[in-house]
Amino acid sequence: KSLNNWIKFLENYIILTIVGLTIGLTAGCLNLLTEYLSNLKLGYCNSNFLLNENHCSNEWFEFPISIYGFIIFIIYGIIFSFLASFIVLKFAPLASGSGISEIKCIVSGFQYNDFLKIKVFLMKAIGLPLAIASGLSVGKEGPSVHYAVCIGSLISQGITKLSIFKSIDHNKDSTIFAKNILISSSAAGVAVAFGSPMGGVLFSIEEISNFFKLSTMWESYYCSLIAVSTLQFLNPFDNGKIVLFEVKYDNDWNLYEIPIFIILGIFGGIYGIIISKFNIKVVNFRKKYLSSLPKLEVFILTLLTCLISYWNFFLKLDMTEGMQILFEECSSSNKGNRSTLIDLCNVKSLSNVSYNILTLLFATLIRMILTIFTYGCKIPAGIFVPSMACGATFGRLLGILIQIFQDQDTCQLNKSCINPGVYAFLGAASALSGITHLTVTVVVIMFELTGALKYILPTMISICITKLINDKYGNKYGGIADVMIEFNNFPFLTSHKHYNFEDKRVRDAMISQKIVYLPSDKSIDLKIVNKILNDFEYSSIPIINTSNNNKINGIISRLDLLKIINDPINNNQSIQCNFNKLPQNDCLNFDRVINFSPLTVGIDTPLDLVLSLFHKLSPNILLVEYNGELKGLLTRKDILRFEYFLNQYQYNSEKQEQF
Amino acid sequence: KSLNNWIKFLENYIILTIVGLTIGLTAGCLNLLTEYLSNLKLGYCNSNFLLNENHCSNEWFEFPISIYGFIIFIIYGIIFSFLASFIVLKFAPLASGSGISEIKCIVSGFQYNDFLKIKVFLMKAIGLPLAIASGLSVGKEGPSVHYAVCIGSLISQGITKLSIFKSIDHNKDSTIFAKNILISSSAAGVAVAFGSPMGGVLFSIEEISNFFKLSTMWESYYCSLIAVSTLQFLNPFDNGKIVLFEVKYDNDWNLYEIPIFIILGIFGGIYGIIISKFNIKVVNFRKKYLSSLPKLEVFILTLLTCLISYWNFFLKLDMTEGMQILFEECSSSNKGNRSTLIDLCNVKSLSNVSYNILTLLFATLIRMILTIFTYGCKIPAGIFVPSMACGATFGRLLGILIQIFQDQDTCQLNKSCINPGVYAFLGAASALSGITHLTVTVVVIMFELTGALKYILPTMISICITKLINDKYGNKYGGIADVMIEFNNFPFLTSHKHYNFEDKRVRDAMISQKIVYLPSDKSIDLKIVNKILNDFEYSSIPIINTSNNNKINGIISRLDLLKIINDPINNNQSIQCNFNKLPQNDCLNFDRVINFSPLTVGIDTPLDLVLSLFHKLSPNILLVEYNGELKGLLTRKDILRFEYFLNQYQYNSEKQEQF
Repeated sequence: KSLNNWIKFLENYIILTIVGLTIGLTAGCLNLLTEYLSNLKLGYCNSNFLLNENHCSNEWFEFPISIYGFIIFIIYGIIFSFLASFIVLKFAPLASGSGISEIKCIVSGFQYNDFLKIKVFLMKAIGLPLAIASGLSVGKEGPSVHYAVCIGSLISQGITKLSIFKSIDHNKDSTIFAKNILISSSAAGVAVAFGSPMGGVLFSIEEISNFFKLSTMWESYYCSLIAVSTLQFLNPFDNGKIVLFEVKYDNDWNLYEIPIFIILGIFGGIYGIIISKFNIKVVNFRKKYLSSLPKLEVFILTLLTCLISYWNFFLKLDMTEGMQILFEECSSSNKGNRSTLIDLCNVKSLSNVSYNILTLLFATLIRMILTIFTYGCKIPAGIFVPSMACGATFGRLLGILIQIFQDQDTCQLNKSCINPGVYAFLGAASALSGITHLTVTVVVIMFELTGALKYILPTMISICITKLINDKYGNKYGGIADVMIEFNNFPFLTSHKHYNFEDKRVRDAMISQKIVYLPSDKSIDLKIVNKILNDFEYSSIPIINTSNNNKINGIISRLDLLKIINDPINNNQSIQCNFNKLPQNDCLNFDRVINFSPLTVGIDTPLDLVLSLFHKLSPNILLVEYNGELKGLLTRKDILRFEYFLNQYQYNSEKQEQF
Repeated sequence: KSLNNWIKFLENYIILTIVGLTIGLTAGCLNLLTEYLSNLKLGYCNSNFLLNENHCSNEWFEFPISIYGFIIFIIYGIIFSFLASFIVLKFAPLASGSGISEIKCIVSGFQYNDFLKIKVFLMKAIGLPLAIASGLSVGKEGPSVHYAVCIGSLISQGITKLSIFKSIDHNKDSTIFAKNILISSSAAGVAVAFGSPMGGVLFSIEEISNFFKLSTMWESYYCSLIAVSTLQFLNPFDNGKIVLFEVKYDNDWNLYEIPIFIILGIFGGIYGIIISKFNIKVVNFRKKYLSSLPKLEVFILTLLTCLISYWNFFLKLDMTEGMQILFEECSSSNKGNRSTLIDLCNVKSLSNVSYNILTLLFATLIRMILTIFTYGCKIPAGIFVPSMACGATFGRLLGILIQIFQDQDTCQLNKSCINPGVYAFLGAASALSGITHLTVTVVVIMFELTGALKYILPTMISICITKLINDKYGNKYGGIADVMIEFNNFPFLTSHKHYNFEDKRVRDAMISQKIVYLPSDKSIDLKIVNKILNDFEYSSIPIINTSNNNKINGIISRLDLLKIINDPINNNQSIQCNFNKLPQNDCLNFDRVINFSPLTVGIDTPLDLVLSLFHKLSPNILLVEYNGELKGLLTRKDILRFEYFLNQYQYNSEKQEQF
């Protein structure tokens, strides 16, 4: 009894711990694999071919910059990206792309179980290091969220089948439970991708969950903590840090720099608008003309990317490594070994300055074009890191331009020198905020990435400007994830969009035909229940009192129903099922899993209000009642379909009137 | 037209900017005043009596530790606390205490306008520096939230009366608008109290708002940014920093320290449980026996506090200053001038170690007792900072104990020395989390206070343990703010409490007598509308179609109604008022402010569901309908009253059965 109590108290924690551990372990392995594959393109370890540059150190042989190194670079790139697209398309096409849009829909109540299958998880996890190592302009955070959510879903489904958990009286809605696990694992996904546990928590609030509950936030916190601790323990980068870069800025900022922070914010806004606008065009084009040739598309993209990238310092480098170099303060003495190839700090030699400016400008523009074409192609691909890289190169470019106009000797005396590394940092933050429309999350992530506490106000200022521009001129649907949801017509109710229901009421949009229900006043055969389940596609089934005018008694979720029915001990098809509050002997009782206070709406409720109920309470299904009797059902799909046809029809009739 | 569009777009930002600026300015002035008053007790500036220690520097004369200094210390303390309690009790008794509980209720929909009046603001703002300077164990964050919310409320009410804003077609619910301003200003209040803008945003999410909207989070972000920027610009501490302390830890943590992090987390949990348990007893005692002698109570408290504090290094010091010393790493060379009086780092001299241990132990225990007695007395008083101070002394104590057992020479060689400053830091975090039950907010605040990025995982681990202990053994109502809400029987629906409605339905709890409404089918005299407003106490008034069976047409908020009625241009009492969708000439039209899709519930809806609607959608009022007709009203007060009597009655009848 007392053990059961403890297990009940700890159940969530046990599941979240296992989920977090698995996510951390996966991330650690993938980090190592990514680094190894990326290094392969640039050199090899003499002592042991299986070691990457970090672990090999002295014995590392780096290919010289020559036609020979160039060819190796391209061949490896093409092999990696081909492998990535091959395994994804062959085994799990759903594993391509970012995945954040789909997860937003799933969390908001959309049933899409195929998206979280083990095959999808494996292909996303294996394809991601290949995609990144190929040199394509892709990031790992979107795919990380996707594989983390797969892990969360698979483990929680598996673990609740164990007998020790089964014996407990849960008394909670399993759909809400499942949803919370998904939200928590999405937090852990971002946390391990960036090494930013708090950033993950805020991401799960700001981007993933469309409603906010304190307990969910706490679960996200716990899961991120476990995942990042595991990652830290594994120590994949061999430097005791969970992030690839950590910057220390010694100098404070000056008030006269505020206009520059604003310019960087404006850049972020414009970046976001340009990328999402043109990316949609590319996605459209791809859907129309390239859907039969996905591998060829990836091949050509990789070839072009490698051909161009090899000759530019920042495009060739791994994006996180590049950002580390860009973020660094000029006074800092410890530089990465590769940064000897470029001297960003010497602004006195004109040739060096113009070389740097051209390199950075080229890197910014080309990276933008590559990102537009790459995001959405048939490999696992995120857009956060490429956006940050663009912002970083632009910010550093701006920093160097300003350095030219500042007399370095005087400013060093009165300590008013600007710090171009900070601008790179702020540029990265603004670009990330510009493309995702996230604000608080971006500040916290940038913060955790670098520990640049002194620059929290500048970061907030830049992102504030980016947000203002996005609000006024940006895509009205929101960040890139929302834009993709809109483009793909996913059944997602967004607060960004204005839905026009005129004055229509529930009775106009509800489904009243072929509604199936379970009776509360009499018990029925398990066989009949199975038949009802087969006939009825919805995720929950109403329970009504058939002997009392079909009054609504409760609702049961299909998952909970199936869990009890599919239990091996209930293999007698003629057993009676009881959907009453009072458990009966000799019956299969469902009272533990029935929700006896389901969300109902009156038949004359305005659809605007129903929409806000869906938005804020995220039910899977709404029961429509009149006088306490069940009259129909309403899902968010029904409402969206209704709205679509309503406005479509209007549009057509308006068109007809015009001609 | 285009100007109007811009004003409409910028309206929120203009208001939030003014609110943020005012909050920042107020905080800056209060910081200066607090520092000046605190310094007065310890010495004075020879060159200019009006300068505090920081601004005076060389000319500062500090009273020696003697009976003479002791008396000055006590007299100043008593004068300050007497002044604080005098002005609060005389002019605005509502300004005493913390205020967070009340603001939670106000934001959740409870009407309590007296709490945000200008008198309350002034007394809170003036009383706070006096209370802190008196040496009592009080913090400034609760009162900061209160005065910030007062500022937000006063400014937004004032500004929307300006003609330039009036001319705009708002088309938004003014109660929601007002609520958002309150949430944003509470964020700014925490932000300026701690110098932690992101911490403020998270506080407003985790503690204040009981529902989550992205736009509200953004408004909190913006308002905090403006407030903290203003504070930084004012530079009250004269060091370019917005927080009193910033720590740099050079050493990383080791895995073997995890058990210590767990012990610190356990301390936080126990601390929270003890303080909230005994504080409730004290508050009860105060209510029963001391309600007529509030000034005497404050006098005795101050006298005792000063008598004890003067002889302990950490109790005598300002709490934030004390924490700065406690948080510091031993290797750091720059120490505050006062820390020469105590050498926390020398663990080799036995006498020094035992002196330190006793000092810290004494400080921890006495501070806990003082906090229990002080929180809730009739001066402006917060509990965050005293809790952090307790945790810091305990953490440092634990650190010194561990240092004794660690061979300092060996550990310095292999760089495995523990850092006792970190334990002080973690102890402060855990105690703060223990008393408030906040998690994410505390991590972010601690982070922004110190910039100790390396220690994010240890912080998260400690707070995780604290949270687990609170969940299992802590007060079931939640943090100290929720406990106070429960104690004071505020009409607040908390997710921590289990409400028992049995199977009762809306018809059992609703108000159906003396319901007043406005007609949608005919226009009525302004005189009659005024009479209806006087008769009817609720915050919103239903609008129904009297000629069609009282069908519900919409709802209008009292505030919006009053705003239009009280406009000087509408001084003709016999003008007709029209509550229809279609504006009419020669009538006062209210269509812009009527919500035509009000939230309604069926008369047979279970109260459990209604509760969750109140909780998640925070309406002020629910309309009860049957067949589309208005049958009654339901506010959260009605539900809570009903639940109270339901269980009271049961309790009585059970008792009767027993005897």
